[in-house]
Amino acid sequence: MVDIATRVYNHKWKIDPIVRSLIDNDFYKLLMCQSVFRNRPDTNVTFSLINRSKQIRLADLIDEGELREQLDHVRGLSLSRGESTWLRGNTFYGKRQMFRSDFMEFLEGLRLPAYHLEKRDGQYELTFEGRWPEVMLWEIPALAILMELRSRAVLKDMGRFELQVLYAQAMTRLWEKVQHLRNLPDLRIADFGTRRRHSFLWQDWCVQAMIEGLGDRFTGTSNCLIAMHRDIEAIGTNAHELPMVNAALAEDDTALRRAPYDVLADWHDEHEGNLRIILPDTYGTRGFLEQAPDWLAGWTGIRIDSGDPATGAETAISWWKSRGEDPRNKLIIFSDGLDVDKIAQLHHQFHGRVKVSFGWGTLLTNDFRGLVPGDGLAPFSLVCKAVAANGQPTVKLSDNPAKAMGPADEVERYKRVFGVGQQTASEVVV
Amino acid sequence: MVDIATRVYNHKWKIDPIVRSLIDNDFYKLLMCQSVFRNRPDTNVTFSLINRSKQIRLADLIDEGELREQLDHVRGLSLSRGESTWLRGNTFYGKRQMFRSDFMEFLEGLRLPAYHLEKRDGQYELTFEGRWPEVMLWEIPALAILMELRSRAVLKDMGRFELQVLYAQAMTRLWEKVQHLRNLPDLRIADFGTRRRHSFLWQDWCVQAMIEGLGDRFTGTSNCLIAMHRDIEAIGTNAHELPMVNAALAEDDTALRRAPYDVLADWHDEHEGNLRIILPDTYGTRGFLEQAPDWLAGWTGIRIDSGDPATGAETAISWWKSRGEDPRNKLIIFSDGLDVDKIAQLHHQFHGRVKVSFGWGTLLTNDFRGLVPGDGLAPFSLVCKAVAANGQPTVKLSDNPAKAMGPADEVERYKRVFGVGQQTASEVVV
Repeated sequence: MVDIATRVYNHKWKIDPIVRSLIDNDFYKLLMCQSVFRNRPDTNVTFSLINRSKQIRLADLIDEGELREQLDHVRGLSLSRGESTWLRGNTFYGKRQMFRSDFMEFLEGLRLPAYHLEKRDGQYELTFEGRWPEVMLWEIPALAILMELRSRAVLKDMGRFELQVLYAQAMTRLWEKVQHLRNLPDLRIADFGTRRRHSFLWQDWCVQAMIEGLGDRFTGTSNCLIAMHRDIEAIGTNAHELPMVNAALAEDDTALRRAPYDVLADWHDEHEGNLRIILPDTYGTRGFLEQAPDWLAGWTGIRIDSGDPATGAETAISWWKSRGEDPRNKLIIFSDGLDVDKIAQLHHQFHGRVKVSFGWGTLLTNDFRGLVPGDGLAPFSLVCKAVAANGQPTVKLSDNPAKAMGPADEVERYKRVFGVGQQTASEVVV
Repeated sequence: MVDIATRVYNHKWKIDPIVRSLIDNDFYKLLMCQSVFRNRPDTNVTFSLINRSKQIRLADLIDEGELREQLDHVRGLSLSRGESTWLRGNTFYGKRQMFRSDFMEFLEGLRLPAYHLEKRDGQYELTFEGRWPEVMLWEIPALAILMELRSRAVLKDMGRFELQVLYAQAMTRLWEKVQHLRNLPDLRIADFGTRRRHSFLWQDWCVQAMIEGLGDRFTGTSNCLIAMHRDIEAIGTNAHELPMVNAALAEDDTALRRAPYDVLADWHDEHEGNLRIILPDTYGTRGFLEQAPDWLAGWTGIRIDSGDPATGAETAISWWKSRGEDPRNKLIIFSDGLDVDKIAQLHHQFHGRVKVSFGWGTLLTNDFRGLVPGDGLAPFSLVCKAVAANGQPTVKLSDNPAKAMGPADEVERYKRVFGVGQQTASEVVV
């Protein structure tokens, strides 16, 4: 029986919006946004799209008009009553009223600010400039839109049957991964795959696969909208943008050296328990931990997001021991470029020595590798980062020089200030 | 948008019928039916269900009430106007008006006769008795019903998500098989999988996968309804029941010895070209060919349906040569227990030496092996055969003693009459 009403409704869509909700966004962006809204509300920042996979010529693949339609659609979004109710009433990390009333009022009134879009050398230059608490919420929807428009560009000439087979193959692949993960005792794993997902509907399916296949071992999703719809935990703490922007605002080298710790001092005031997670790699993990104040050793855990993950975890364990902490009470969250084999390997290596958790991103929500001719759906490394704050350029070093960003002279200055020596480069796939 | 009308309609179904059309049946049954209708219309035959996989206790798996509902539904079917038009107006094997008017009138008035159903030792005893041209049309729907009720019994407790993953896996598996077959030059392959299909919808999907993936190399389907819906060729010629019933009716050993050839003499009068396919194994291929009259060597091809297929094909090639025929003008159709590896192997061995074609059955339309716990969806060997004709038991020997059927003394008599010596047994999986 043909549902004529549905067909007519579908034909009436002006566009098929990719991001349909302000909270189709990562939970940690909201947490950080609240922190920024309290501590640095008037900072002017610029976020910029950076495609680290230059061979993917996005401006050739994606129609500019379609991209503008999708971005404009996001500018028209505002928090719905149900979404507001969920943010105000829900328990996050065991805590009620995680979001303060003044912040919720800000969020309820928010519309995302303007964007600036140009084509250059087959790539899009997409930037967002304005007040930090507003601009920062563009990162995830901008990335998700570009990733999904690229998927759509590749899929648009495929027939109904080919599409069915494609998704059957992707489902089968993911289900095999989930079955593999079932074998890991005491696994704790979450979906961190919003930003580079194949599509919204596919991420939603992936989350359901994790719920069905892993039960309690699946701890939740970074995506607030999916967490709300699927009635699971929203997951995430903080990211590099906090130390990056604060470092850029430092007036001299002394202030710069202190900036990453000052940010965490603010966080310490606001949060406790499993939200006290250190992201130590912004300017080199080793130096960060060596210089860290003792109260940071009391935090719950460390997230490893660049460099060799096993090395990073061993560094963290040694550091805790050197500060008189028992690593078995500490949490390590792996979140960089994970797939099942690496997850299993890290789990075996660290399970029992420390609490282990995984934030599985791109290869959870966008593994279509090898499924179309020319591998046109393979994931690639697209980011959207704070590149300036109050006119000062930001710098990120991380534990992998291939991920470093910022003007060359500033990168050198930061390396000197933070005492970063020789680093080992590894390929950045996603 | 919920389509309320569809939901209400679905809820109104008394049963979900498995066989919804009289022509959801194999094409060769209709061809043979026309032949029987002309030559032996008043023969009384008994067809009986035989489960060669005793470990599958069908009567424990399948509810008797549901089975009766499905069988009763088939008894209520009659040829629709569109189906009749298609049979009368379509071209089969390049020929118009394949079905004569008197036969079409018989078919248009036909309702399938009564069945007899009992449970014994965890199995169903299901028999059909009556006039041959009517009873013979029960074989395929009876098998398809039992196979699909077994599938439904295994699937009934699975959740929506599990089902989606199951079919995604089965689709992926079939698509990989199709991709594998694409590599075989000049492949000719048809769907012969109606009788032991997982379900009607699944067979229909498999046919679409073959159309999409193989194009012209996919020559058609044995299933008339699917051939009509998908606008492809209906495929098939004749089967063991013709020699079996005619042999059972033979009055003495001399008549018995002649019976398999008499049947083909009738066929010779009715059909030409690609419909002149010898099925030589009913009472042993070697003896059948040695004793065959010369006009049979002029036929288009031979179908290999039991025993080692390569040996059978070599026997056929030698026979053609011994009769002065060029095997390169002859067609060999392999149709027994095929899967892609065996297809590829036979294709490589015989491609160029003879025209080769494949009738791919159970492992095309019912390969869910290993996809549910306990392998509850693995295909098994269920047949429905003519076991008596005018009160005389039928006998089948074939080229594999594991497939022999009939009373022991009659089997011995047939072996003697047809000069069947030592045979090699091989396992019957499907």
